[in-house]
Amino acid sequence: MLGGCSDEPDRLTRPFASEAMRRAHEHVSTWMREAGMSVRKDNVGNLRGRYEGAPGSRSTLLLGSHLDSVRGAGKYDGPLGVMVALAAVKRLHDSGSRLPFAIEAVAFADEEGLRYGTHYLGSKALAGAFDAADLKRADAQGVTMAEAIRAFGGDPNKLIDDQWDGSDLLGYVEVHIEQGPVLEAKGLPAGVVSAIAGQSRYHLTFTGEAAHAGTTPMDHRKDALVAASTFVQAVDAYAASQDGLVATVGQLTVEPGAANVVPGVVTLSLDVRHADDSDRRRATELLIDLAAQIGKHRSIAVTTSRVSDHPTVSCSTRSTTLLAKAIQDLGHPPVQLASGAGHDAVVMAGLTDVAMLFVRCKDGVSHNPAESVTEDDVAVAIDVLSKFLELVAAEG
Amino acid sequence: MLGGCSDEPDRLTRPFASEAMRRAHEHVSTWMREAGMSVRKDNVGNLRGRYEGAPGSRSTLLLGSHLDSVRGAGKYDGPLGVMVALAAVKRLHDSGSRLPFAIEAVAFADEEGLRYGTHYLGSKALAGAFDAADLKRADAQGVTMAEAIRAFGGDPNKLIDDQWDGSDLLGYVEVHIEQGPVLEAKGLPAGVVSAIAGQSRYHLTFTGEAAHAGTTPMDHRKDALVAASTFVQAVDAYAASQDGLVATVGQLTVEPGAANVVPGVVTLSLDVRHADDSDRRRATELLIDLAAQIGKHRSIAVTTSRVSDHPTVSCSTRSTTLLAKAIQDLGHPPVQLASGAGHDAVVMAGLTDVAMLFVRCKDGVSHNPAESVTEDDVAVAIDVLSKFLELVAAEG
Repeated sequence: MLGGCSDEPDRLTRPFASEAMRRAHEHVSTWMREAGMSVRKDNVGNLRGRYEGAPGSRSTLLLGSHLDSVRGAGKYDGPLGVMVALAAVKRLHDSGSRLPFAIEAVAFADEEGLRYGTHYLGSKALAGAFDAADLKRADAQGVTMAEAIRAFGGDPNKLIDDQWDGSDLLGYVEVHIEQGPVLEAKGLPAGVVSAIAGQSRYHLTFTGEAAHAGTTPMDHRKDALVAASTFVQAVDAYAASQDGLVATVGQLTVEPGAANVVPGVVTLSLDVRHADDSDRRRATELLIDLAAQIGKHRSIAVTTSRVSDHPTVSCSTRSTTLLAKAIQDLGHPPVQLASGAGHDAVVMAGLTDVAMLFVRCKDGVSHNPAESVTEDDVAVAIDVLSKFLELVAAEG
Repeated sequence: MLGGCSDEPDRLTRPFASEAMRRAHEHVSTWMREAGMSVRKDNVGNLRGRYEGAPGSRSTLLLGSHLDSVRGAGKYDGPLGVMVALAAVKRLHDSGSRLPFAIEAVAFADEEGLRYGTHYLGSKALAGAFDAADLKRADAQGVTMAEAIRAFGGDPNKLIDDQWDGSDLLGYVEVHIEQGPVLEAKGLPAGVVSAIAGQSRYHLTFTGEAAHAGTTPMDHRKDALVAASTFVQAVDAYAASQDGLVATVGQLTVEPGAANVVPGVVTLSLDVRHADDSDRRRATELLIDLAAQIGKHRSIAVTTSRVSDHPTVSCSTRSTTLLAKAIQDLGHPPVQLASGAGHDAVVMAGLTDVAMLFVRCKDGVSHNPAESVTEDDVAVAIDVLSKFLELVAAEG
């Protein structure tokens, strides 16, 4: 149903504050109400459903994930977490249960950053980390973020009202597809996230000398692509040799880029992630240093600029332990794994303790229409989250 | 003077049948007349100056090079050969000499292929190798080649009239900047071209699997760029190990090309040249085979398509020997070198024997405003060509 809410006819593309998102909200708010929740849309465009706790309860547990998507997306990255949260709340509602805390299920407005090139707009507003300067960003049609928020029914000048009101929080729990192959390889439906890996991004430029491909002998060349290729290889080989490290050159462009011209300039991206910040920083330093050495060896100038550096977010020990116990109580081994991808939980960690449950996905594929999750695994995820709520309630 | 004949205000860009070419023709035809030549422009747009031989002479020696340029060109690639030919003829004219053969100096209309993406239009028309299908090609403004020829004063239906008339030819001799570093490294003003290297061009596609850069462990990846990088390295290392071989990956593109996505598809160009055709073909086969092996090793599908394959053109032994003798007579060592770049002489070899004289250029740079030749070296080239004409005349 949500999979049909797209801005493109033949594939799933649901940007921030879009017409597709408006239709998604109609569905999700109906389901929230059916789960006994009061519903409100905040200014940034998060849809927030609240299921009150037993009389006298004062704290709140946040559940959620995002409803926006990348271009040509799958159906599960984001919406799965929202739906599992609503399903767990609906069970409470259907059985007339109230917990000793309220639950607020949040369908975040933007995690992927498709429309404005900046991520986590929804969770940032809730966590009080929204940068007002972003309101001036324009999308591909020239519509500013402030205009988009207004058109979507929010007030861009009142994003501060979206911030958590300061009342007691028990934490934030997010269910998400794994987007990787670990659970599938282990034959497990779900796993507990130990940490969301930190990430370093760099932009490197290798500058050699463009030259005629027919007339420049091999030993006279300063081929930027040959040097960059050595680097690409080194990144792959080094990451493969280090436990838990992933490093990727995902972008690479060659100038002048003609078949008969020796490459003069190559620019490329470097993305390094590890659940352990010191391991990540050490690896990044080593690779940047290696690039310089490769350049020196080949008389190629290498310049490096840091694009971003996000430390690892550790999941709450308390919530993670309870999620693991819930999985175990349901008869599955409680495997823990790090998340290599970023999630709203990264931003929410600035507001409260976070925890995540990963659900097995086919072939580890995501950001792709081939993204696939089984009904059985979704049922396990709902069971685990329901059990988790029970355990939190029992802990008092 | 010619350097100012450009279609762009701040750099030298002189395409086939352009306004810039029209102005260049005004200068060159004046200089041809000053050298005692009769001048005509043929249909394709070659400017042809004829200096008749002594009474009773029946054969013709062709001299020439091209007047068109790449975008953002230097001043010497092409025009130098035309100017040196005119200077040598002018010496004959100034001294009232007639040789036992006529000289026809041709300023070719197109060698670089900038406007229509197809090379050698001028020499093809003269050598009878013009493909009439090319007349339908359109330039970036949608002007067909036939229209451009007509606008430039030629008749596109009469290109057959541009063909050599069948009378005796002594050969074609072209003076050109080296576009490489060999003469500069040897400290020599000029050298004789032994052959114009054959060239194989291929297009290769490496297809792996795009995947999330944060969530896909290194040992689960099918990274097309890592495989392609191995190939780039192998091409460089193999070519460096083989005497006279040059091999280049000049184009490389990555899909999807996002910093956080493991590359799924890489396409690249391979350009292989060697003065010996069997060495070139052996090297090309080896590299294509290597690409397949690299792909197999990494579970990357590799497809290969041949773009072009031009055999080596050997220069005429007789003319080359006389050019070498002319250089030696002027007190320079008569070094021979292969041309890695293509020239009008490649096409002219289909019509008659060809020979080429290379002139030292600074840092081996060409196709660049930094292209540079000294006045002294140009004077040597004129002396060598004049001496060569004397030697040919003496041989009878």
